[in-house]
Amino acid sequence: MSEITTPTSLENAAAASVPERRRRTGGRSGERHRNTGTTKYQKLVNSLAKTEILSPEALEDIHEASLTVLEEIGMDVILPEARDRMKAAGADVTQGSNRVRFDRGLILDMIASAPSSFTMHARNPARNVEIGGRNLVFAQVASAPFVADREGGRRAGNQEDFRKLIKLAQHYDIIHTTGGYPVEPVDIHASVRHLDCLSDLVKLTDKVFHSYSLGQERNLDGLEIARIGRGISMEQMEREPSLFTVINSSSPLRLDGPMLQGIIEMSSRNQVVIMTPFTLAGAMAPVTIAGALVQQNAEALCGIAFTQMVRKGAPVMYGGFTSNVDMKTGAPAFGTPEYMKAVIAGGQLARRYGIPYRTSNTNAANTLDAQAAYESAMSLWALTQGGGNFVLHSAGWTEGGLTASFEKFILDVDMLQMVAEFLTPLDVSPDALALDAVREVGPGGHYFGTAHTLARYENAFYSPILSDWRNFETWSDAGRPTTYDHANRIFKEALNAYEKPPLDPAIEEELDAFVAKRKAEGGVATDF
Amino acid sequence: MSEITTPTSLENAAAASVPERRRRTGGRSGERHRNTGTTKYQKLVNSLAKTEILSPEALEDIHEASLTVLEEIGMDVILPEARDRMKAAGADVTQGSNRVRFDRGLILDMIASAPSSFTMHARNPARNVEIGGRNLVFAQVASAPFVADREGGRRAGNQEDFRKLIKLAQHYDIIHTTGGYPVEPVDIHASVRHLDCLSDLVKLTDKVFHSYSLGQERNLDGLEIARIGRGISMEQMEREPSLFTVINSSSPLRLDGPMLQGIIEMSSRNQVVIMTPFTLAGAMAPVTIAGALVQQNAEALCGIAFTQMVRKGAPVMYGGFTSNVDMKTGAPAFGTPEYMKAVIAGGQLARRYGIPYRTSNTNAANTLDAQAAYESAMSLWALTQGGGNFVLHSAGWTEGGLTASFEKFILDVDMLQMVAEFLTPLDVSPDALALDAVREVGPGGHYFGTAHTLARYENAFYSPILSDWRNFETWSDAGRPTTYDHANRIFKEALNAYEKPPLDPAIEEELDAFVAKRKAEGGVATDF
Repeated sequence: MSEITTPTSLENAAAASVPERRRRTGGRSGERHRNTGTTKYQKLVNSLAKTEILSPEALEDIHEASLTVLEEIGMDVILPEARDRMKAAGADVTQGSNRVRFDRGLILDMIASAPSSFTMHARNPARNVEIGGRNLVFAQVASAPFVADREGGRRAGNQEDFRKLIKLAQHYDIIHTTGGYPVEPVDIHASVRHLDCLSDLVKLTDKVFHSYSLGQERNLDGLEIARIGRGISMEQMEREPSLFTVINSSSPLRLDGPMLQGIIEMSSRNQVVIMTPFTLAGAMAPVTIAGALVQQNAEALCGIAFTQMVRKGAPVMYGGFTSNVDMKTGAPAFGTPEYMKAVIAGGQLARRYGIPYRTSNTNAANTLDAQAAYESAMSLWALTQGGGNFVLHSAGWTEGGLTASFEKFILDVDMLQMVAEFLTPLDVSPDALALDAVREVGPGGHYFGTAHTLARYENAFYSPILSDWRNFETWSDAGRPTTYDHANRIFKEALNAYEKPPLDPAIEEELDAFVAKRKAEGGVATDF
Repeated sequence: MSEITTPTSLENAAAASVPERRRRTGGRSGERHRNTGTTKYQKLVNSLAKTEILSPEALEDIHEASLTVLEEIGMDVILPEARDRMKAAGADVTQGSNRVRFDRGLILDMIASAPSSFTMHARNPARNVEIGGRNLVFAQVASAPFVADREGGRRAGNQEDFRKLIKLAQHYDIIHTTGGYPVEPVDIHASVRHLDCLSDLVKLTDKVFHSYSLGQERNLDGLEIARIGRGISMEQMEREPSLFTVINSSSPLRLDGPMLQGIIEMSSRNQVVIMTPFTLAGAMAPVTIAGALVQQNAEALCGIAFTQMVRKGAPVMYGGFTSNVDMKTGAPAFGTPEYMKAVIAGGQLARRYGIPYRTSNTNAANTLDAQAAYESAMSLWALTQGGGNFVLHSAGWTEGGLTASFEKFILDVDMLQMVAEFLTPLDVSPDALALDAVREVGPGGHYFGTAHTLARYENAFYSPILSDWRNFETWSDAGRPTTYDHANRIFKEALNAYEKPPLDPAIEEELDAFVAKRKAEGGVATDF
């Protein structure tokens, strides 16, 4: 019978040369943890030619339409200081209203000074990340109000789960940065929550982190904590961007006060702004993907231009988050074909402006089923082929962002490591072409015992964390575990394997003192 | 809080404009079945620029190395008639052995006459499929020894399940052709199995089908049944390829008798050969993907050249099936990063020769869990970006090909429809850019009730078959169904919705008479 595979005979044959489960190297890049499957930290370079779905003409049409939006309709800018800065830069501010209109020339002048690439600095220099160009950086889930694992079910976020999730982000090297709070710890009072959370991010991880733009005081606290964590002066930090913030426009066409304040505080200090409109086609944006992209682009360019009005050359990313809604309920949908198109077209727009491109690993599943996997895989497909540079929510995001899932985190880490392995250049050296091995084996033989195989077998292939490749009988005897079962086991193993990264005691002391002082002052106002 | 989505408010807002679940159009292409989610038949065109992972030099290195294999090492050709034909064409046949070596010039001369595109003709002309170029054709799972659904568990293939599976292939328009027996019906004696199965394929579907190359008699029966089904003469069928067969080399470097006989019978009558080496890196091929590709290419070129020795211009596809093994057990792995690389590199090779490219939608999961979805999604990613023209096993294949799963069939159909929607060109007309709608809504509004939205809402987005986008509470109240649960329900609805395609009674009578005659003759020998 053609094409019936024979795993049983293969297994028997292979057993002779691979007698036991061994530690292995992840891809070509380093040590792999025996139980949790983390591979060595990878600076990922995506050398694929980027997929394009917009013709050059269509790209220009979207570009021009978005400039028309900013010129004719304008944006509502809900912060007097921001309107003043925009007016000073040459924008048309309507007296007695929030409305600001932007000449297309002004927008293009401003965005021209945004850098095409930059480095984000971590307290551990080995964790610095390069943003832009062909670099691909993965950040953990952010901003979920709920958290879930199988035993505990779905529950409101809390500090314990917050800490567990950032420990997981620290454990897995494929997670290059954290990104906001993986879950909102509502058991900490909002006035001091940022102090505890940012302090944890410094102590429990050594990777770059994010600070929310929810008022000037929080911005200033975030900047100070990042500075203390790195043990540097504010002058050095201004030369070395070390903190990032996500700025969302309130689509359609509005920038709210805390977001504008965030741009002012972060950009003026040369820290990183990720300007991301949340343009959901059919809800807060036109129902057509092209129309939603016009609006996304208008809002993104406006925010990016404002960063440059605040400080020329300030690092900023172009965020794409356009998706569609469920036509039956209006609920946001993710990882859909429309989402894929928006991600790829967004990449073309970002590259047109030479600005690093932020994307996301999304899905709208309620549990760790096939849907969670295919929606995420299709998101990863689009952002990889479309040239995403920075991927927020890359591990753990589920249920349309409402829930941070421990099991989904592991599933995503596995898929991210697969993407990383896929992007590893294929070895086409004469040795890899293996003509001598083919000569040795010849027709009708097999390659199990050849020197060529034995020299490479252990490290030849990516070894997934979750894929259960046992034959059906063995798998049945083991109780028929699903991916969900494996992920549930692995996340606990990863928490056990977590190691706190070293931190200079003087820095820890300074950090604790700062947090204590700010708490004594009452933290921040929570009534804005 | 930035980036917390608010599905509840969105749902309320949307409910006003979308009061009920309605029939919808699938993509831009037609009617959608209310319960089963099938979209109208789509002739899929993949206009994406194809992803390349081999540099031009590396592509040439693999090409040259594979020609060296054929020239220096050669292939074992286990059929005297085939060796005679090869010798007549100029190959170097070693007297008294099966070994045949091929001058690189001979191989290149021969493959040059293979057509770059052709049509496969179905008994219903609306089901004809275009092979090659930018066309993308999906064929159902083939050749699984086992079949599974949740209630019945995993069991040996049988005629009832065989029939159910081909009815599903008929029901879903995204499944363009069947492909072999979706499951091997072992309750029919092997001597007459092909007669019953091919007869069913004619009667229960109106799509192009496959005939196994398992001896000359079966080939001839398959050709006759295809001819009868179309109601044409053999002369017309020779002008209009109507039947296809998969030819697997017995890697490494061997072509078995029934496979060679299949090429002779099919190519001599201008029917379609899919030449597919099964080169599993680390088992029947070198452990390096580049080495496995060298061997794949050598075996594929040899088989393709032989089709042209039999009949210049005979339609043939270049089949890629290279994957890796599980390093722990030696079992075949699929949908892996290595598999993705092999699929994309294989596309570069096929395009270098101008021969249509056959790929597969693979996975090695034992159940319908996240693994089944991500391995398949990564397969679809690679074959779509890599330029696959014909996708065997595109729906229902699981457990490394050992099992045809009813639920996996539905999952795959949904993913294939998503790929089809992704490949639908983005509408960038002035109307789609939606400037007037943006002007109408302005800053701070929403698009739910606008004329632009209402005119497009129903058909704007692909509506998945399986994705459960209800909010967590509603989903919980419904019993927390997973993708597996939904797929289990949908496949039964699709079987209920199945409609037998019309067939000329005279054709049915001729077909029955032929099958009865051949059964009376005892069918075919089963001892080869």
